[in-house]
Amino acid sequence: MRYFTEEASAEVVNERMGPSVSPRLSRIMSSLVTHLHAFVKDVELTESEWGVAIDFLTRTGQICSDARQEFILLSDVLGVSMLVDAINHRTPGQATETTVFGPFHVDGAPEREMGANISLDGKGETCLFEGRVLDVDGRPIENALVDVWSDNEDGFYDVQQPGVQPPFNNRGIFRTDKDGRYAFRGIKPVAYPIPDDGPVGRMLAALGRHPWRPAHMHFLVTAPGCERLITHIFVAGDAYLTSDAVFGVKETLIVDFKPVVSPSERWRAHFDFVLAPATASRA
Amino acid sequence: MRYFTEEASAEVVNERMGPSVSPRLSRIMSSLVTHLHAFVKDVELTESEWGVAIDFLTRTGQICSDARQEFILLSDVLGVSMLVDAINHRTPGQATETTVFGPFHVDGAPEREMGANISLDGKGETCLFEGRVLDVDGRPIENALVDVWSDNEDGFYDVQQPGVQPPFNNRGIFRTDKDGRYAFRGIKPVAYPIPDDGPVGRMLAALGRHPWRPAHMHFLVTAPGCERLITHIFVAGDAYLTSDAVFGVKETLIVDFKPVVSPSERWRAHFDFVLAPATASRA
Repeated sequence: MRYFTEEASAEVVNERMGPSVSPRLSRIMSSLVTHLHAFVKDVELTESEWGVAIDFLTRTGQICSDARQEFILLSDVLGVSMLVDAINHRTPGQATETTVFGPFHVDGAPEREMGANISLDGKGETCLFEGRVLDVDGRPIENALVDVWSDNEDGFYDVQQPGVQPPFNNRGIFRTDKDGRYAFRGIKPVAYPIPDDGPVGRMLAALGRHPWRPAHMHFLVTAPGCERLITHIFVAGDAYLTSDAVFGVKETLIVDFKPVVSPSERWRAHFDFVLAPATASRA
Repeated sequence: MRYFTEEASAEVVNERMGPSVSPRLSRIMSSLVTHLHAFVKDVELTESEWGVAIDFLTRTGQICSDARQEFILLSDVLGVSMLVDAINHRTPGQATETTVFGPFHVDGAPEREMGANISLDGKGETCLFEGRVLDVDGRPIENALVDVWSDNEDGFYDVQQPGVQPPFNNRGIFRTDKDGRYAFRGIKPVAYPIPDDGPVGRMLAALGRHPWRPAHMHFLVTAPGCERLITHIFVAGDAYLTSDAVFGVKETLIVDFKPVVSPSERWRAHFDFVLAPATASRA
């Protein structure tokens, strides 16, 4: 085997891999090392800059907890999460476009009755969310599960404020009826900053970027035989639509929230989800 | 500003930077985002592979402590540390070549008398290390500080075994005399595995790579008016010279350790260090 040289740096590292490494791992690591070395050479990284990077990565790992995933935030603000989403969901034809999952989904949210209100803290302006879940041929899908979550009126998800917000505040799972219909009440979403008191927030500040996400409701829609759909709907007119800190906005996901006069809500948002067939899914 | 697209992903992210970002930070981050996105596109990273990466980085950060720096290990085994070293020390002419600093240096080691033994635990085969510190014109440098450290006979640095090894075991700082000479006793170095019970060790195993470093003595040599020299000397004949887990070996740093018959040592290693003038240093 060769000694390390600046010229052949990536090749020397990649030649060290053993003969029985999984082909996929070998492909990923070779590409990673090649691109990583190309970056270091491109900018001629200094030793003190390398030290800043080591320290940044360490602090990013150490701030992670059950309630906070700073590396997902980092991936989000560098556009990597959206890129992975795009590569893995080159949505065929009419299917609803996907966007970032984000770090705030919680497994085990309760299934609620059609039309129930997921806002348990009494804050915010009530909004009726309704529409249908369809297949790509426009046929309604019965018993699709529509898992929804959002921040509250103060801009925080329940998991960010344990003991302050009721458990599963602004979360719930709804089941479509025979016409593929879902309906639930929540708040008209509000814009919020991603957690910016850690390494990623300081990086954004150094880059002259704000940490805000435009107002949105999260959806995870599943049905047998269909590809899982992870997406948001965004509130038309939001000031951050073209500068989402995590690059999540797609034009097809922007919805007009219409003011209504009703005892049970002040806003109404209609959106139909179209699920791709499962066979279109990547491994 | 533009919405995110797969095609223009890196450009969209980089366009978000504010107008008053430091030019150097802007250059580094633009290059990083460009290369990172190119990597993700090259391998068409799947969502589950992205999840493995997030988890790997998180665990790498969380295992870090005052006594362990897993991100430096990661940088080391991916050849990034050696690449940064190479870029920043394109050594002019006769100056001694550099190699990785490693994570085991400790500030504040005691200055010891010429010829003193740094091995305080009584283990290992004693070796006399001696030579001179010179400038690039071959003139001896008086009062150069030669800071040395190595593992013990069991393959561990003192900081890896607090309470087991005496403080500053196999560490010391020596001052050159008017002829530029240094001399100290330690053990003939032994090969050791880098800490491989964490995420980086598991990665090496998955890549079919061993975690061993060939036997070496670390040197940090400083003198006024000279570039700081960080290097090792390696033991000729070591089985791991061409497969150092961190790619640190350079042929000019390999030294014949000669057996001797002496009451005070069993081995002798001679090496002259040549320091580059400080003006050759990169910022």
